Parts: sequence; C-alpha cells; structure tokens
Amino acid sequence: MDPNISSRIRVHRHSERGHYDFNTIYSIMDEALYCHIAVIRDGVPVVLPTLHVRIEDQVYFHGAVAAGIFKDLKEEAHATLSVTLLDGLVLARSAYNHSLNYRSVVVMGTPYEVTDVRHKTSVLKAMVEHVMPGRWNDCRRPTDVEIKTTRVFGIPLTEASAKIRSGPPLDDVSDLSLPFWAGVVNMKQLAVECVQDPQQSPDIKVPPYLPAK
Amino acid sequence: MDPNISSRIRVHRHSERGHYDFNTIYSIMDEALYCHIAVIRDGVPVVLPTLHVRIEDQVYFHGAVAAGIFKDLKEEAHATLSVTLLDGLVLARSAYNHSLNYRSVVVMGTPYEVTDVRHKTSVLKAMVEHVMPGRWNDCRRPTDVEIKTTRVFGIPLTEASAKIRSGPPLDDVSDLSLPFWAGVVNMKQLAVECVQDPQQSPDIKVPPYLPAK
Repeated sequence: MDPNISSRIRVHRHSERGHYDFNTIYSIMDEALYCHIAVIRDGVPVVLPTLHVRIEDQVYFHGAVAAGIFKDLKEEAHATLSVTLLDGLVLARSAYNHSLNYRSVVVMGTPYEVTDVRHKTSVLKAMVEHVMPGRWNDCRRPTDVEIKTTRVFGIPLTEASAKIRSGPPLDDVSDLSLPFWAGVVNMKQLAVECVQDPQQSPDIKVPPYLPAK
Repeated sequence: MDPNISSRIRVHRHSERGHYDFNTIYSIMDEALYCHIAVIRDGVPVVLPTLHVRIEDQVYFHGAVAAGIFKDLKEEAHATLSVTLLDGLVLARSAYNHSLNYRSVVVMGTPYEVTDVRHKTSVLKAMVEHVMPGRWNDCRRPTDVEIKTTRVFGIPLTEASAKIRSGPPLDDVSDLSLPFWAGVVNMKQLAVECVQDPQQSPDIKVPPYLPAK
C-alpha cells in the first residue's frame, strides 16, 4: 500500500522537507507521546491535544464517552491529526532565517469508531505501552465497564505526510561573514525525575522499565 | 478585560482542570515554543504546527507569503490555536487511569493580519526573543524586503482557556493496595547540545545567552 499523496497532504512550502515513506511517518508518530486533533464543531475548527498510538497502518486515539470532541465524530466527519517533535532552536545570523528544527506528521481522514472489544483492548494495551513500554504487564487490566466507558477511534494512515527540518541555519551567502554566532541548540524531551505516588509504600519494588532518574 | 468564557472554550471534561486567568494562560503560551493552528480548508479541518509568540493580550504567528495556511485566512476565517506542554507520564495502578501530566491552552478567534511595518517588526523581534532571549540584539535585523515577504497574523486572547493535569495518578480506592509501582515520570523539554554552524569559524565568541551545554 502506498500513501496517497494528495495535494492537500503534500508538503508545498519547503517541499524538500516533505517525506511520504512509512518508515519516516511511523517513527515520528511512535516517538511523539501526544497529538493534536482538529475537527469542525458548529462550523468552526477546533483542535485538542490527546494521546495517540500507531498500530500498523492506523493511528488511534481515545477518550471518555462524555468527552466533547467525540460528539463531533458521530457521522462521516473529517479530522486532521498532527504530531510534532521539537528537535532544536535554529539560530541564524539573520533574524529572518531563525527557525526550529522539528519532525512533524499530518494525517487527514475520517475517523471510525472501534467497537469490537478485542480490538479496543488491543488499542488500549498499545496506548499504555506507548506511554511506558513494559507497563501493560505490570498494572491492573481494564474491566469490561472501563472498556465500555472509553471510546476508541482510528484513522487509516492512507493520507499522511511528514515534514522535517534538520541541520544548521540556512543564511544567505552575503550574511555568512557576519560576526554573530550561528548554529543549533538541540532540544530533547527527557525524563527528569520519577515521583512515587505518596499514597504508596516506598518499599514497593521499582520496576526495571522506569527511567533511571 | 476578562476572558469571555464561552461554552465552546470552557473546559467541560474534567472541568476542575480548567483555568481562565491570564497569568495561567500567558505562562503556558510563553513557555511553549510552538503551537498548532487549525483552520478550515475546502470544508475540512486542517492543523499545522508553527511558531507563535504572545505579546500582551494577543497571540501572533507568521509565515511566508507563499505558505498554504495563509490562503485560508483571507476573510473572516475562524481559527483555533492550541499549545501543549508535556510535564509527565502518569503511571496508575490501573491501565484505565494511566494519563499524562500536561498544561495546554486553546484559543479561538478570527485572525487579523498585521500590516503596519512597526507593529510587524515588533512581532518578529518578539518571535526571535521567544526562541532565544537576548538574540535580537545579536543578529542581523530583517530588511524591508524580508518584512514584506513575511505575513504576520494575530488573534486576541479574548476566548482562551487552559487545561492542566498535575500530580499523582488518581486510582480507585479499591486499587490502592495493588502491588504495582505508581507515580509520575516527570518530563521536560531540555537543551542538550549547542552545535555551531560548520560554515563558521570556531573562534567566534560564544554568546552568553546560549545554554551551558
């Protein structure tokens, strides 16, 4: 299956930054812990952050039955989902060429609801594992009621593109000799501390999948 | 000026996580380096990441005259802008109560174009300073042509809300004695390395505003 590089998903501005291969799109989606989903509500575009997970060629998101955004997904509603990873601050010699290094993905499609309990459970498992690999086997599994009060939606990754900016600033040749330091401040989303729930005994075994800090 | 807490901007789901005061909304917008903007294009919602900056009670974003998203902002178009800061991975005893700690802001409004050159320049200055405080006085300022080929839009922060989840997992009382480690892995977007442009002499003075790493 090839992605359908429609005009609306194609990267037009800085087209050299556009990528359409699955490996690139999937790796960005898998590294990002949350996405932004846009839908139309009462004629205006709304956008909300939410957790997502990719399984094969589908991206899934979920929420409580009562959540507002799901009221907009009753019928054949369009949605666009975007994930963005910030990789660096690009300090050019010119103010004009300042930029960010980033990897982003945009997916357009019509979300479908996942109602099959086995399918739904496998998505919820993948979501927990996306937040913390190894965790599904070290927590209480969802009950039937919990599964019922959660709605899960999927969007096929048939209309998706990635856009990546990397590397040093791109200054005009005439600016290269200017006396301003130029380069990139690389950025990373890092685990900085593990804080145990104060309601729990500190004697409990710290699981091996927790970050070292 | 009080924010207009309309129904569409109010936090309905987990309403206790909603915040409407300027200090909270502004501090989240100022810490975030980029936002996601949703507009309607050809009847479908599209969402794109872009740099933003807040000045007083306005949020601004910019882009090249040729950029696609600006074609959708010709008239009285609605837009929604969202910024999200990921603060932690919430590991509950139950799969169901796994979550993320985050601070997010949603702004709804009708973007207006900033065409006055002085106003536009002050926004571009604020954007550079948002990426790296201290940088505007240590780079080449934009030329008239560069300012002309950049479009700047603003949205008033009159319809904005913040949503914040913080603190430990919220497990059911009946789950509290389960033998699974519970807590939060705190996350932070950090500068990890400064990489000088290889086209520049390493003898150039490293500016004091660069992160230590």
